[in-house]
Order: sequence, then structure tokens, then C-alpha cells
Amino acid sequence: MIRTMVQRVREVLILMFLALMSKTNGEWKPNHWGRSNCVRQPPRPPLPVPPVQEENCLSWRVAVEANNVRGWRTVPTQCLSYVERYMIGGQYEKDVSFIIDQILAYAGDITLSADGMDAWVFDVDDTCISNVFYYKGKRYGCDPYDPSGFKEWAMRGGCPAVPGMLSLFNELLNMGFKIFLITGRDEETLAHPTIHNLHNQGFYNYQKLIMRSVAYKGQSAVAYKSSIRNQIMKEGYRIWGNVGDQWSDLQGECLGNRTFKLPNPMYFVP
Amino acid sequence: MIRTMVQRVREVLILMFLALMSKTNGEWKPNHWGRSNCVRQPPRPPLPVPPVQEENCLSWRVAVEANNVRGWRTVPTQCLSYVERYMIGGQYEKDVSFIIDQILAYAGDITLSADGMDAWVFDVDDTCISNVFYYKGKRYGCDPYDPSGFKEWAMRGGCPAVPGMLSLFNELLNMGFKIFLITGRDEETLAHPTIHNLHNQGFYNYQKLIMRSVAYKGQSAVAYKSSIRNQIMKEGYRIWGNVGDQWSDLQGECLGNRTFKLPNPMYFVP
Repeated sequence: MIRTMVQRVREVLILMFLALMSKTNGEWKPNHWGRSNCVRQPPRPPLPVPPVQEENCLSWRVAVEANNVRGWRTVPTQCLSYVERYMIGGQYEKDVSFIIDQILAYAGDITLSADGMDAWVFDVDDTCISNVFYYKGKRYGCDPYDPSGFKEWAMRGGCPAVPGMLSLFNELLNMGFKIFLITGRDEETLAHPTIHNLHNQGFYNYQKLIMRSVAYKGQSAVAYKSSIRNQIMKEGYRIWGNVGDQWSDLQGECLGNRTFKLPNPMYFVP
Repeated sequence: MIRTMVQRVREVLILMFLALMSKTNGEWKPNHWGRSNCVRQPPRPPLPVPPVQEENCLSWRVAVEANNVRGWRTVPTQCLSYVERYMIGGQYEKDVSFIIDQILAYAGDITLSADGMDAWVFDVDDTCISNVFYYKGKRYGCDPYDPSGFKEWAMRGGCPAVPGMLSLFNELLNMGFKIFLITGRDEETLAHPTIHNLHNQGFYNYQKLIMRSVAYKGQSAVAYKSSIRNQIMKEGYRIWGNVGDQWSDLQGECLGNRTFKLPNPMYFVP
């Protein structure tokens, strides 16, 4: 009885604290998202998340990042506010920034060859350019995947750069790596808007952008991307690094010397 | 100037909040650790962690779990309080419990064969039995690895079961899986205390406990464990699941149909 009351008081205190922090956060935390022609207003501060849900959703998110939860179709509804807060409240950017530091430390230790065949592989969606504003309209992944809605979004070519990724891309280029972008986006319908989007966010001078051609339709991401990486290696390239937001970018064959998993709690690509 | 003041006020508020929460936490959160003959007093409630460090250490921890940080020798000193809070404050247990649910959901969908050759692989340290009380004395991994100190600890055979793992172990046994325990512990010196420790924590009826014999000394964990799993599969077993707290348990050859990474922010085994 007393425990229950104490618990209630504790919950109220925590909610007051979170509300306060959520409010003050918005005041001096700048929005680091790149320029975008699709965001018409700045994102509202996310709703506070009750502590028990916060802990459970953290368990879920870490399990997703460690590849312990697979084949999930939607974000658990009770984690909507948590994922919103994670994606636009600052922690996502911190996590990406931390991984970028790891990538740069690793890349800096590599002695590149003079033959120009040292390569790096990047995924595109939520690795170079971000779909977070699209997923905002899909309750941050609580709504099921909507292929035609996503295609419509991608056609606009208005994804902002993932914070920090353009700098990483340019630093790797400056070091001398040849960058290959491999995406599961459909080549036939999305080639033009994807190239346009990469360019309008500053991603130039990549060696090649490889999109899913008719030959690879229906194949899993693991099979398709393995096959592409295999071709790159057959051309004589050494893949030193491989960066993606999905485990399907980082599993299969010809993975490269080291893989880096960027966070993505919004969707799962098998 | 005003921003700095507001920032200071915010920091003080956050610290007050964390101190309050840290204090109240200790009052009604029971300690779920299994019985142990090596813990002489209940762990003190962990110190509060300032929010910026909390966020940075969370980035570090998630990067460890996603295998983005490799070959690290010690926990970053500024994350000592964070890791302590994580390990004994409840989130570690929540994370393990969440993964156990994933394992049981996956295992429950498997149709076992009548030939008795359906197998499951577990690591031992910080998978079946826990070294958290040893690492408490090593500043939760902020101190460098101490081989003789760890051997002394392991010789006592006093590690408690990792919360929830004995139930998982028994449920998999009941389903009909043959359980193989594969550990990097030295067979020559640690066989007896390890078996004693597993038994005093309730881990019986495993098919086999495989420890590092002289033949495997000096090999990496990935090479040694791959070789052992290869032997198990050559005997005709089908490895359905493979559970460990280190990525070196879950990489290499003959991984099994699915791997599960338990959290461990205290140390890295290459």
C-alpha cells in the first residue's frame, strides 16, 4: 500500500522531470539535421516516456542493434515516444557520431596502397541520407512498411544527410579510399531522384552507385549486396570498411575487413 | 552567458533528480542475483551519472553490443559509474531477460527431430555464471585484465548464475535440446572449480562441457570455438542456437542457425 503510494509519487516526480527536460531541451539544442527541402517545420520536442517503458524500450533497441531481434515488422507501439525521442532528441546523433569516430580511428591506421584499389562500402538509406522525416509520418516505424508511400518519398529526393556522414564520406575520399554506394533502391524507378538527392546533400565523387537492377529483384538484401561486393572484389578492390544501418548490409559474403552498424530502430530490412 | 547559467541550473536539477532516484531505487528494488558464496555484503546503490556522461557512455555501450568497438582493453574511466549502474541497477537484468524471451520464442518454433541431435551452444562466463562481483573489484572493467586475479576468482567456484539463464537452460533441456557449454577457461587448472560452480548454481545435465585444452592454448577464441563447434557438427549435431556475451563466441565457422549476444560492457575477449 505504502509502496504503491511511494511508487506513484516517484512516477509523478519522474514525469515532471522528463517534462521539464523535454521542454528545456528544445530551447538550446540546435537541430543538426542537414538542409532539406521536405521539412516544413522544425520537429516538436518528443513526448516524455515513462521510466519503465524507457527501460524496456532501451532493452528492445539494444537487442535490435546487437542483432538479437530479427524479422520485426513494426516498432512496438509502446516504444513510439521512446523511438521519437531517440531519433530526434539527440541520442541518435551521439550514437552515430561515436561510430564515426571509431571508423576514422580504424581508417587512419590503414596504409593505403598506391594502386588506387582501396575501397569502402556504404549503404545509402539511413546511412548516407536519412528517412527520419518520412518515418515521422509513419509513427517512427510503429506503422507497417508502406512500399508505395516510401517510393513516393524517395522520388522527391529530399532526404537530408545523416548528421556527420558527409564529413566522414569526404574524409575517407581525402584519405584515398574509393567509395562504393550499394543500395536496395530500385534502379529503374529511383535512379534519378537518388542521384539527385545524394548530390543535393553533397555526396559527390563516389566511385560508383549500385542500385538494385531487374536481375536482383526478389533477392534478399544479404544475397544481392554480397553478390555486388563479390563483383567489386573481383575487379581487384580491397574492401576495408563496410557501413550500413541494417545487419543485412553487414552479413553474407565479401563483407570487407571490418563492418560498422549504424543505429536504426525504425525498420528492419531482411 | 545566460545560456551558461541556464545550463548550470539544468545540470544541478539533473544531479538532484538523479541523486533522488538513486536513493529511492535502493529501497524497493530487490537484488535478483542468484545465491553466491563470494558476496559478503549487498552491493551499494551505484553513484549517479551526470547526463552528458550517461549519454556518451550509452553510445559506447551500444557500440560495444553492436560490435562497432573492438579490441578494447578497459572500460573508459568516465563510464565507471555508468557501467556500475548498468550492471547492478536493473538494466542489465532487463536486457538479459529481453534476450531470453527472444531465445524462447525462436526455440519454441523449432520442430525437434527424434534422433536426439538437436543442439544448443552456451558460453560459460557471463553467459551461464556471472563475474560481476569479481569485476566490481576491478572497477567494472576500468582496471586492465588481471589473469592471475581472475584465475584466483574462478578457482573459488563462487560465481552466481546470470539472472534468468538457469531457467532458460532448463527450458531448452526440457524441449529436448542437447546443451554444449564451450568456454575459454583453461581445462588443466580450472576444470574442477568450473564444474563445481556450474553445479552449485544448478547447471546440470548438459551434454558436454568443453574447456580449452593444451592443444588450443594461444589460439584466439574465434578459432578455438569454431573448431569445437565444427567437431560437434561432425558428430552429427545440428546447432540451432549459440548464446554468448562476446562477439568472439558468435563469429567464425559453424555458428549455428542463430546467434544471441548477451550484454557485457565490462570486458572484451578477442
